[in-house]
Amino acid sequence: MKRDIDTLLTERRLAAAVIIKGEHPNPTFRYAVGPAAQHLGTGYLVLRPGSKPHLLHGGMERDAAAQTPFERSEYGDWGYAKIREKEGSPVGASARLLQTLLQHLGVSGDVLFSGVLDVGQSYHTLERLREYLPGIRIAADTDPGLFHLARLTKDDEEVAAARAVGDICTRAYARIEEIIRGGRLEGKRLKDAEGWVTIGRLRRETRRIFFEAGLEEPHGNIVAMGRDAGVPHNVGNDADVLEEGKPIVIDLFPVEAGGGYYHDVTRTICVGRAPEELRELHSLVREAVDKAVESLHVGASGRTYQELVCDLFEARGHRTIRQDERIEEGYVHGLGHGIGLEVHERPNLSGSAANQDRIEPGSVFTVEPGLYYPSRGLGVRIEDVVHVKQDGTIETLTHVPYELEIAPA
Amino acid sequence: MKRDIDTLLTERRLAAAVIIKGEHPNPTFRYAVGPAAQHLGTGYLVLRPGSKPHLLHGGMERDAAAQTPFERSEYGDWGYAKIREKEGSPVGASARLLQTLLQHLGVSGDVLFSGVLDVGQSYHTLERLREYLPGIRIAADTDPGLFHLARLTKDDEEVAAARAVGDICTRAYARIEEIIRGGRLEGKRLKDAEGWVTIGRLRRETRRIFFEAGLEEPHGNIVAMGRDAGVPHNVGNDADVLEEGKPIVIDLFPVEAGGGYYHDVTRTICVGRAPEELRELHSLVREAVDKAVESLHVGASGRTYQELVCDLFEARGHRTIRQDERIEEGYVHGLGHGIGLEVHERPNLSGSAANQDRIEPGSVFTVEPGLYYPSRGLGVRIEDVVHVKQDGTIETLTHVPYELEIAPA
Repeated sequence: MKRDIDTLLTERRLAAAVIIKGEHPNPTFRYAVGPAAQHLGTGYLVLRPGSKPHLLHGGMERDAAAQTPFERSEYGDWGYAKIREKEGSPVGASARLLQTLLQHLGVSGDVLFSGVLDVGQSYHTLERLREYLPGIRIAADTDPGLFHLARLTKDDEEVAAARAVGDICTRAYARIEEIIRGGRLEGKRLKDAEGWVTIGRLRRETRRIFFEAGLEEPHGNIVAMGRDAGVPHNVGNDADVLEEGKPIVIDLFPVEAGGGYYHDVTRTICVGRAPEELRELHSLVREAVDKAVESLHVGASGRTYQELVCDLFEARGHRTIRQDERIEEGYVHGLGHGIGLEVHERPNLSGSAANQDRIEPGSVFTVEPGLYYPSRGLGVRIEDVVHVKQDGTIETLTHVPYELEIAPA
Repeated sequence: MKRDIDTLLTERRLAAAVIIKGEHPNPTFRYAVGPAAQHLGTGYLVLRPGSKPHLLHGGMERDAAAQTPFERSEYGDWGYAKIREKEGSPVGASARLLQTLLQHLGVSGDVLFSGVLDVGQSYHTLERLREYLPGIRIAADTDPGLFHLARLTKDDEEVAAARAVGDICTRAYARIEEIIRGGRLEGKRLKDAEGWVTIGRLRRETRRIFFEAGLEEPHGNIVAMGRDAGVPHNVGNDADVLEEGKPIVIDLFPVEAGGGYYHDVTRTICVGRAPEELRELHSLVREAVDKAVESLHVGASGRTYQELVCDLFEARGHRTIRQDERIEEGYVHGLGHGIGLEVHERPNLSGSAANQDRIEPGSVFTVEPGLYYPSRGLGVRIEDVVHVKQDGTIETLTHVPYELEIAPA
């Protein structure tokens, strides 16, 4: 949680952590600053153990900055225009400004740097800073990183936000169900008063519901049918008309507009009667979700749940990624990922031996097994978001029906 | 332009440029890859002068990758799971994968790194890479950087995209005008059939028009009245009811959904009759736009136009940022910025002596002078996007009326 940051800084003997805010969205800055972050431009947030954080921000954003609880200064207070002129390059200017600021704040020793910036530019900025301020060392982060570790355990407000976004997803699926039930089959294809019902139509309706509810989809979404449903990240083809008996994978991962919390949910549906093979895959994937969620307990490693699902799928004759990371049919991905201010956070539920993440109270993450057979036009994924409560019990934050078959009129 | 990348690599004697794609939006990756980029996850794009670019991507995104013209490989082809396991940390795994890839592609010498990643993590990844692959050097970029230099000159398709987004902005302002004209004053405040007309209402209507047209506002927008209009980046207060005679600064900067091109336009309007002082400020800011745009010519430095506007404002008794970077009243910011796949690109039209940017054919940028007196409840900004055509003539891509006063019914 946010209050853990100070303890983590102390434990790791860090003199400071500096979050650099460029123009790109910066979830860690948003985490440390709160919602006021969305109205702040470029700047620097310096966190020192036991001290009030210092925010250096643009003068034009002084109203947004005034809403934060931090000690504050503006670029102009440090004579930035002169620094920029003297240094010439943005790399030199940033390094000199950082040097000036950190010296003023009395920071020396190990400093952790975070923020979302251009790789090359920030590399050379830190190299230059080491030259300008030899008293600091660019600290290596742990894995998970310090801020990811804090973000790993969500407080009640964060869980409530993820749940609320999930409730809007429920509405989106209900609308899709309504559209399908309101259509009729012409041959094998679905039609209604507006014409052929297409993948694009479902996507548009979903987008509209999210828009009305104040959500965004910065990473898009997946509404993919048949063979496309069999390739996990194929986003689907808007021109496809919904066809009876084909799987449609609908994976939605919207976020509160302006940089808030994500939800991430997948259902696989089918217009009318599903073929036997599809029903079996769906039932097995459903079983995998249930088994994994039932087994979840505090202290267990995220990896064990991937193992459990691989065990189940392999026992039923499916190949899995733990047998071969290059497979394209069977169970081809990890079981899940933390979710919060980013769509992929910690803990990780992948099967890599390098994955040391554990289930902790306050964790919020997805459980999303799937089975994929693109060569046979088949793909099934089911994904829920779960929350590990402080008492260790698991609650599912996603409340979307699991039914595979939806009958048109 | 995109085709310049190869020449730039050669001129700078770079063995390669590597664009690292993480989970954050990455405009340079989008520039190099095209619209297919929005359906690609993490990966690496390696550009070598005279060779076909190589894209390393996730297996689940193979359908999107197949739409690119690049030489391709997947994580699995390089045994990434084993690498991840052996290296333990993500930093080590990324460095080892990069080493393997670059060695396979025969890259040694100066390599430019770009991409949008966490500062600390990417710093240590590149440090580790230097250790794993001593034959490469992490090249320092120029200013503007190589990719920003290429992006500085837009082709016809890019200009058309910026213009099309501008046309939708025109629609948004027309809707705002329609709302104001459809209201009536009760005392000094505006009301219509839906109730008091608020700042929030204008913002919502604008958002809806953008949504319907397939645009997003990842950086939000500004609809700010009175004193708030006097602080350039104050986004405005949704609860404020529109009041006769107060300036309302409306700054819109939407982008094509899924990571396309931006437009950026500002108008200052006023319900009913504007006080004399506001009309004078507005007329002077309008004059500054006209003077700057009329003077624009190929080869001139962006800085000269800021000087020109400062000259004009100072001659009329206003203080400017070139006199004091910390001022909060008068002309408090730079004249403009390039715009494209990011809302702030090159060329820069600020007044810093360090600003060496020049106006070139193909440049697309904003011209946005403003005058701010928050202590008197006043702020005026007018912003257009202009394009320098190949023949050196200037065309304004923004077509929104400049009128200050809008009379309610």
